[in-house]
Amino acid sequence: MQRKSIVTIGGGTGSFTLLSGLKKYAVDISAIVSMADDGGSTGVLRDELGVLPPGDVRQCLVALSDSSEMLRELMNYRFEEGGLRGHNFGNLFLSALEKINKNFSKGVKEASQILNVKGDVIPVTDQDTNLFIELKNGKKLKGENEINHDFEIEKIGIKKNYLFPRAKANKEAIAKIQEADLIVIGPGNHYCSIVPNLLVDGIAQAIRKSKAIVVYNCNLVNKKGHTESFTLDDYVDSINEYIGSERIDFVVFNIKKPNAKLIKKYESQHELLIAFNAEKQKKRRHRVVRANVLSEKKVQYTKSDMLAHQRAFIRHDSDKLAKILIMLLELGEYEHIIKEIV
Amino acid sequence: MQRKSIVTIGGGTGSFTLLSGLKKYAVDISAIVSMADDGGSTGVLRDELGVLPPGDVRQCLVALSDSSEMLRELMNYRFEEGGLRGHNFGNLFLSALEKINKNFSKGVKEASQILNVKGDVIPVTDQDTNLFIELKNGKKLKGENEINHDFEIEKIGIKKNYLFPRAKANKEAIAKIQEADLIVIGPGNHYCSIVPNLLVDGIAQAIRKSKAIVVYNCNLVNKKGHTESFTLDDYVDSINEYIGSERIDFVVFNIKKPNAKLIKKYESQHELLIAFNAEKQKKRRHRVVRANVLSEKKVQYTKSDMLAHQRAFIRHDSDKLAKILIMLLELGEYEHIIKEIV
Repeated sequence: MQRKSIVTIGGGTGSFTLLSGLKKYAVDISAIVSMADDGGSTGVLRDELGVLPPGDVRQCLVALSDSSEMLRELMNYRFEEGGLRGHNFGNLFLSALEKINKNFSKGVKEASQILNVKGDVIPVTDQDTNLFIELKNGKKLKGENEINHDFEIEKIGIKKNYLFPRAKANKEAIAKIQEADLIVIGPGNHYCSIVPNLLVDGIAQAIRKSKAIVVYNCNLVNKKGHTESFTLDDYVDSINEYIGSERIDFVVFNIKKPNAKLIKKYESQHELLIAFNAEKQKKRRHRVVRANVLSEKKVQYTKSDMLAHQRAFIRHDSDKLAKILIMLLELGEYEHIIKEIV
Repeated sequence: MQRKSIVTIGGGTGSFTLLSGLKKYAVDISAIVSMADDGGSTGVLRDELGVLPPGDVRQCLVALSDSSEMLRELMNYRFEEGGLRGHNFGNLFLSALEKINKNFSKGVKEASQILNVKGDVIPVTDQDTNLFIELKNGKKLKGENEINHDFEIEKIGIKKNYLFPRAKANKEAIAKIQEADLIVIGPGNHYCSIVPNLLVDGIAQAIRKSKAIVVYNCNLVNKKGHTESFTLDDYVDSINEYIGSERIDFVVFNIKKPNAKLIKKYESQHELLIAFNAEKQKKRRHRVVRANVLSEKKVQYTKSDMLAHQRAFIRHDSDKLAKILIMLLELGEYEHIIKEIV
């Protein structure tokens, strides 16, 4: 039997979690990765070396890598002193490979071989582009980093978000979407990691035309000033709008409550748990899988692990998430669980 | 039959040439590498990150690596722009591994695994030390880089050269020297790459006590202001002096003349071909192998190949050099060539 094929669409940290779980199954995985990052080490490399943003791709490579723990740790190592301070070793690795190969995607392929990566990590585009959000008051935000740190986006409202210059999708990304049995969108930062993929010319159309099951992994908490008041339905509507049709078949929604102290801490930072009222008489094409996908492990990272700085305490569990996605992929064999799907 | 064991003692570029040839033979290779470098990318990393000098070790790892051409090219890649300008990727790789492992030699071992290195690359010491030369006029030169660029050393004369703080030899280096069947010293920069190994506590003694055949690969040209007037005998005497006994058994001396134009170019830079008068009635314990060990290949390097900047046009041929060393190792089987040894 041919192995089934899963395409994930997202950014760095969310995709890292997702892929870490999925790679344990005998499926073909293609990770399509947002290329809009311009903050931190990635931003410096873009500015100074003129390379494409390596950060998100690196995290996906590490997630799917079957190499030694040491090599994975090395890829996440961040220099702490001198002129190299803040630079992530894995980012330098990808930038050097891009320079040598004179092409980012080719560099990523070489990196995949060196890191013994299970699956394909595909930059959504090979073109150098920037993410923009124009607000309803005329203010224009440039770049993922600026957008990520602006907390008035929801209040003022988005007039338009777009990539400039316009970017064409990587052909391989389109091909993988066309062949996919399952397309998984998210989790990830809504406007900074997920949507930028859908703004690349060709991606939304390919998803619309695809025969795959399309699943949206909704985030666990809202983002302050961006999607602060979003309910689950708002997220799904938003994603469907960028796709250009009600293409989402399933939504994975966490029902396990984090501990009360953590919730309070998040709430104090305007990051609220996402609400979903299953009873509300909204006409939905998609079905909502309500499940416990919350990580209940203690967070333990080494100092050199860059994820420690970005990853949240309220976060998805890789294995639980993967289990549900594999179940959806093999839905026929799991008819008995359908009753749990709203 | 047990594989024979070869220990090389040297620095970066000379050892690179030597090891590239030796690795094609079924012998156990241990490359003992000078740790006195403080120039270029290596110097910046020492200063800013407080790491040990990675440059020479990197070249030896690349020489003995059985990994893909791409990975080897990556290790020699030098960033050309921005804050990373001048940094060699392989140096960053070794420095990050040292930081993660909190020990340089452990980092080198991890690097060896990642790069699929045939043999052992052993930093001569794991201690952070600096090379000093005190001249007869009282002037003190600190560090390999300063010494390398001072051209009055021979004229004024060396009072003393030493490491400060004093450095103890890596235990593994001592063990390998003790077990060696063949110890190969050079080629390499006399005062900056070769001698610094012999200044590390324990190395000279181990060579003196070793039962190995000791071979000295003499350089092809003299170094301006350092060994500008040296004959072959002067080099051998100097090395023996640092070892503390007439321990050298064989000296490999090139007899193939480079083309006249090249010789002229070198002479204009005070780099003369090394002279040897076999007829001169000097009492020598060592035998001189006069042979063609000159590279006659055209030099072709990629822009990213750091060796291009350091490597000379008059240089050893890896394969010719290795062939002679293997011959000396197996001397019994090659009795017929003894007549060619002076």
